[in-house]
Amino acid sequence: MIDLRSDTVTRPTPAMLEVMMQAEVGDDVFGEDPTVQRLEKKTARIFGMEAGLFCPSGTMTNQIAIRVQTQPQQEVICDRNAHVYLYEGGGLAYNSMVSVRLLSGERGILSAEMVEANINPDDIHFPPTSLVALENTMNKGGGACYPLNQIELIANVCQKHSLALHLDGARVFNALVATGDNPAEYGKHFTSISVCLSKGLGAPVGSVLVGSRELIKQARRVRKVLGGGMRQAGYLAAAGIYALDHHIGRLAEDHRRAKLLAEALQAHSYVDSVLPVETNIVIATLRDVDPAQFLAQLEAQGVRAVPFGKKDVRFVTHLDFSDEQLGAVADVLKKVNRQSA
Amino acid sequence: MIDLRSDTVTRPTPAMLEVMMQAEVGDDVFGEDPTVQRLEKKTARIFGMEAGLFCPSGTMTNQIAIRVQTQPQQEVICDRNAHVYLYEGGGLAYNSMVSVRLLSGERGILSAEMVEANINPDDIHFPPTSLVALENTMNKGGGACYPLNQIELIANVCQKHSLALHLDGARVFNALVATGDNPAEYGKHFTSISVCLSKGLGAPVGSVLVGSRELIKQARRVRKVLGGGMRQAGYLAAAGIYALDHHIGRLAEDHRRAKLLAEALQAHSYVDSVLPVETNIVIATLRDVDPAQFLAQLEAQGVRAVPFGKKDVRFVTHLDFSDEQLGAVADVLKKVNRQSA
Amino acid sequence: MIDLRSDTVTRPTPAMLEVMMQAEVGDDVFGEDPTVQRLEKKTARIFGMEAGLFCPSGTMTNQIAIRVQTQPQQEVICDRNAHVYLYEGGGLAYNSMVSVRLLSGERGILSAEMVEANINPDDIHFPPTSLVALENTMNKGGGACYPLNQIELIANVCQKHSLALHLDGARVFNALVATGDNPAEYGKHFTSISVCLSKGLGAPVGSVLVGSRELIKQARRVRKVLGGGMRQAGYLAAAGIYALDHHIGRLAEDHRRAKLLAEALQAHSYVDSVLPVETNIVIATLRDVDPAQFLAQLEAQGVRAVPFGKKDVRFVTHLDFSDEQLGAVADVLKKVNRQSA
Amino acid sequence: MIDLRSDTVTRPTPAMLEVMMQAEVGDDVFGEDPTVQRLEKKTARIFGMEAGLFCPSGTMTNQIAIRVQTQPQQEVICDRNAHVYLYEGGGLAYNSMVSVRLLSGERGILSAEMVEANINPDDIHFPPTSLVALENTMNKGGGACYPLNQIELIANVCQKHSLALHLDGARVFNALVATGDNPAEYGKHFTSISVCLSKGLGAPVGSVLVGSRELIKQARRVRKVLGGGMRQAGYLAAAGIYALDHHIGRLAEDHRRAKLLAEALQAHSYVDSVLPVETNIVIATLRDVDPAQFLAQLEAQGVRAVPFGKKDVRFVTHLDFSDEQLGAVADVLKKVNRQSA
Repeated sequence: MIDLRSDTVTRPTPAMLEVMMQAEVGDDVFGEDPTVQRLEKKTARIFGMEAGLFCPSGTMTNQIAIRVQTQPQQEVICDRNAHVYLYEGGGLAYNSMVSVRLLSGERGILSAEMVEANINPDDIHFPPTSLVALENTMNKGGGACYPLNQIELIANVCQKHSLALHLDGARVFNALVATGDNPAEYGKHFTSISVCLSKGLGAPVGSVLVGSRELIKQARRVRKVLGGGMRQAGYLAAAGIYALDHHIGRLAEDHRRAKLLAEALQAHSYVDSVLPVETNIVIATLRDVDPAQFLAQLEAQGVRAVPFGKKDVRFVTHLDFSDEQLGAVADVLKKVNRQSA
Repeated sequence: MIDLRSDTVTRPTPAMLEVMMQAEVGDDVFGEDPTVQRLEKKTARIFGMEAGLFCPSGTMTNQIAIRVQTQPQQEVICDRNAHVYLYEGGGLAYNSMVSVRLLSGERGILSAEMVEANINPDDIHFPPTSLVALENTMNKGGGACYPLNQIELIANVCQKHSLALHLDGARVFNALVATGDNPAEYGKHFTSISVCLSKGLGAPVGSVLVGSRELIKQARRVRKVLGGGMRQAGYLAAAGIYALDHHIGRLAEDHRRAKLLAEALQAHSYVDSVLPVETNIVIATLRDVDPAQFLAQLEAQGVRAVPFGKKDVRFVTHLDFSDEQLGAVADVLKKVNRQSA
Repeated sequence: MIDLRSDTVTRPTPAMLEVMMQAEVGDDVFGEDPTVQRLEKKTARIFGMEAGLFCPSGTMTNQIAIRVQTQPQQEVICDRNAHVYLYEGGGLAYNSMVSVRLLSGERGILSAEMVEANINPDDIHFPPTSLVALENTMNKGGGACYPLNQIELIANVCQKHSLALHLDGARVFNALVATGDNPAEYGKHFTSISVCLSKGLGAPVGSVLVGSRELIKQARRVRKVLGGGMRQAGYLAAAGIYALDHHIGRLAEDHRRAKLLAEALQAHSYVDSVLPVETNIVIATLRDVDPAQFLAQLEAQGVRAVPFGKKDVRFVTHLDFSDEQLGAVADVLKKVNRQSA
Repeated sequence: MIDLRSDTVTRPTPAMLEVMMQAEVGDDVFGEDPTVQRLEKKTARIFGMEAGLFCPSGTMTNQIAIRVQTQPQQEVICDRNAHVYLYEGGGLAYNSMVSVRLLSGERGILSAEMVEANINPDDIHFPPTSLVALENTMNKGGGACYPLNQIELIANVCQKHSLALHLDGARVFNALVATGDNPAEYGKHFTSISVCLSKGLGAPVGSVLVGSRELIKQARRVRKVLGGGMRQAGYLAAAGIYALDHHIGRLAEDHRRAKLLAEALQAHSYVDSVLPVETNIVIATLRDVDPAQFLAQLEAQGVRAVPFGKKDVRFVTHLDFSDEQLGAVADVLKKVNRQSA
């Protein structure tokens, strides 16, 4: 089975597993797991931030970032397809009691003008705007990336209006590899970034929230109350460290294969269009065929992907997807074409 | 000063004030104010509901209705311009911890198809949809009204999917007077209705939430925790009873004057367009003139209205606005035209 | 019927009602009700505070004060019998998402030592302590009053640890009349005070929250989201102004009658003990008789009071309770004694 | 260093680590990690429950259990020293928005009478009681255990009043080993149990919530919104399975050593008293010596424990504490005695 449903499905490589087994651990609730501490410092340093906090998931790092940078009865600005709004179980309202202003970015990419036009005036009818959340790459936008200067402009608006600026970095390294931007340069525009280790990077579990020392201190409190404090978490953190050391550069491979996969899809008449591929996500709009039925045909031939809205399907390339498998997928796409005909 | 900013600005008539002064009162927190009880029963009966609850504001009746018919981490469907989302201080997230799905109705009027297409599937990523909130008339839609059969279709979708259906009835009597629908017939499609007494009806304070006995029992608990329980509230309730008895039929007058005002506006070159007038709200889109500047000109001549988005201004007709004043406003609009030229 | 269940049951005097009906009003949601504004300023000035906010109930002023001076996941210190914890429907958790540390004050009166010993250390297991809430007089303590110097000591602890200090002033004027303390002197020890108008003062509805201008600005936002913003609220506010002008001094009468009532109770064998009477509350512990049964006997003779825990009953004297009625109650108590014998 | 601060400080044995690294894993957010599923089923079966949910911590399983069995503005009954109230960062209020009724159990052990006497009447002033939370063994009670029949009586009260009954089973196997009760028999009295794997059982991370299928379905939603969904969590779950298979019986060893440690402590004049030892927790009250100073002396000699209130210190025995180390601790206690003298 070739699994392209998400880059979260990867399993640790033998080398990563070896490192996990040898990890030095301690009770992280007492602040005594040296491997967790190493991971937190390392991730913070990469983005030029003061401190980090290891959490069991990207949903937790995102939700904590929003919680510590807002108050109940305030408002968050994000794209209407942002993961923090759409896929985190209603967490904005439940965890942070904040209202949400939903913008329609181009492929989910917001502009500074859009952001500024949607900051609420000081009027008791409206919740005060306090945070802007970007996502890069943008999952629902087919892995679209922000140009660095667009981020700069948004950061300027945020500073001008005293808004926090959070980055949902579920696939931030895919963006950085695609654009060639420097992470430390990049990081200075945000007040917080959640960095996922279990997507393209291939670690089994976890995400690191990075920000100022004060922000991370507060984040640690919220992690506690959410139940995200883990004991000997160093086994997981060791995988994260390995991933940061060995799995960033190779994301270019995933991007190359994603582009080839897009071309293969485009060639078939059952595909209406494919969003331009910038990173490791391929979103195809189908023509005259139901996504569920199409995906069932693929699965019968050993290829898995996911439905993504009413007419779209999504494929995600990753660490466990090789050139050879890409060839196999291309063959399956051809077979499906003949079947449809 | 002719104040058309809202129908909330009216003051009790002498007859209403007389009734207020003579009200029989008691401690309503002990459930002993007979006038409050009379108002609650009367309003419920009008809409064919079992019970009612008097609250200090329409924001409170709306927020309570949503709270008692949802759980945290669920989702509410409403128009993107609905009062419950846009003007209640972020209450959906703060009071009920519910996520919101925002639809783009035509002038804020939703269809059954739109509602059904936006009910979340049973998937832990998405908050379960549990309530649909309509607003009739729709304030931001320029006082647009729902046709009764459209409400019926939406109610059917709600029943099919076990969703509560709340009506923000800030101006429900304007809608009923405009369409001629029967309130009791109308009420049976909703699980709760908030009925405002202080807008077109002209009472000084308050709104009544109506629904089933069980719903109102729970609502009373929520009113308590929000601090909405009042002691000798009968003075206010008496005004509400008077308004229900004497101020409903006369809303047709407000609607007639609103249509004439719209015609007067339309005649001037500084007005680009006016939303079709169905009730007592007139929304005009300006051409080549800033709303703030235009409203300042009006105010200088003794007429007040409010800005309503980037190019629009809103006028609301009401109990304290006469034909004579309408003539005066028409004159002011002409003067402003000459000034602009 | 002589109603001593609470001092909330009073009805406006003819003079108060006259003032109410002549009130100049406006739309207070637009900030345009002159009578509401006068009440807010007057109450603030009495306690030496910058600003005030009129709300429909003391529960709302208390809950707002706590909300604006805490963050979710912090902790409030109060007596285990404090109204804010015990009688406000679980509002500390629901409205403010704060944990509560419950102390056992003597008759509900806390000491500075108790407060300081219960401030949480900086440890992620514990919610940070951020507010202390006192109640004066203390309802469940039988109307016990704080000595001013004890308040000063608690205020010092709060300043030292950067804690807000809120006063639930449901019966603050009873306390001030009993101790002779100066309200403006008194007010400077608190960051917020809720001043109830509908208990001993005899207004029909409402409470004023007083504090700094900044605090009241935030409080106005919270009042909005809770639905506590009222339109032409001046009718109610006028009663409050009248009460502040005419009904404070006369509280001494209520206190005198409460002492006499306590003596009358003490004289009977079915009364085990009576808490020392400092203000207008009399709490008697019964001997060998069930409170429900005892209160039924009283009610059958035209006197009402409330059960207050397993063996206690509470009587509250007020504006509508005269010396003549006191004599009648004393007679009833004697009759009940004979019946019990 | 001999670390007796908590039984959370243990590190996996070589055999456990071996099993971890061989675990078959999958993406548990897609419900595809076979090892996680095995752990969840196994734990549920042990307690006679239908289903289980693996979470990163006992705080999360407790908080989820409370959340899914209460509504905001309800009340939870627990001991005033319960972990869910005292050590989970204010989670009752923050995660569930529930009020708390704190009882003073004997060493934290509640009785059915106490519980029943504290259920709120149906009155809007009081939050409706909806859940009782027990803790067994009781950490702050020095590892005290509930007799099974006392749990039965409490469960009867809960059924009679339609209350959920949750068990914080942070050390439930210590209790079961001490009393000899049958877990499946035991489990049927509770509507939910959180079973910690990282304390006495020695797994590095995690806790399993067990209950009905419907409860666990809802719990999975809450885990998602809190950010507790992990990807390839099978590595951690494998350790849990190993612990359930191999580390339960041996808890008797920890209990035996705890009793001997208590005797050793009792022998010294700087110890005022030691709580009776029932399981693996030893709480000693010091005489004339500050806990911080005493613990510093121990630490200087290679033994760690924690302060536990103003005069108490706590030692916890566990998997990594041997008879030999017990002897060493006894020697240190003697040395400290001589130093103090």
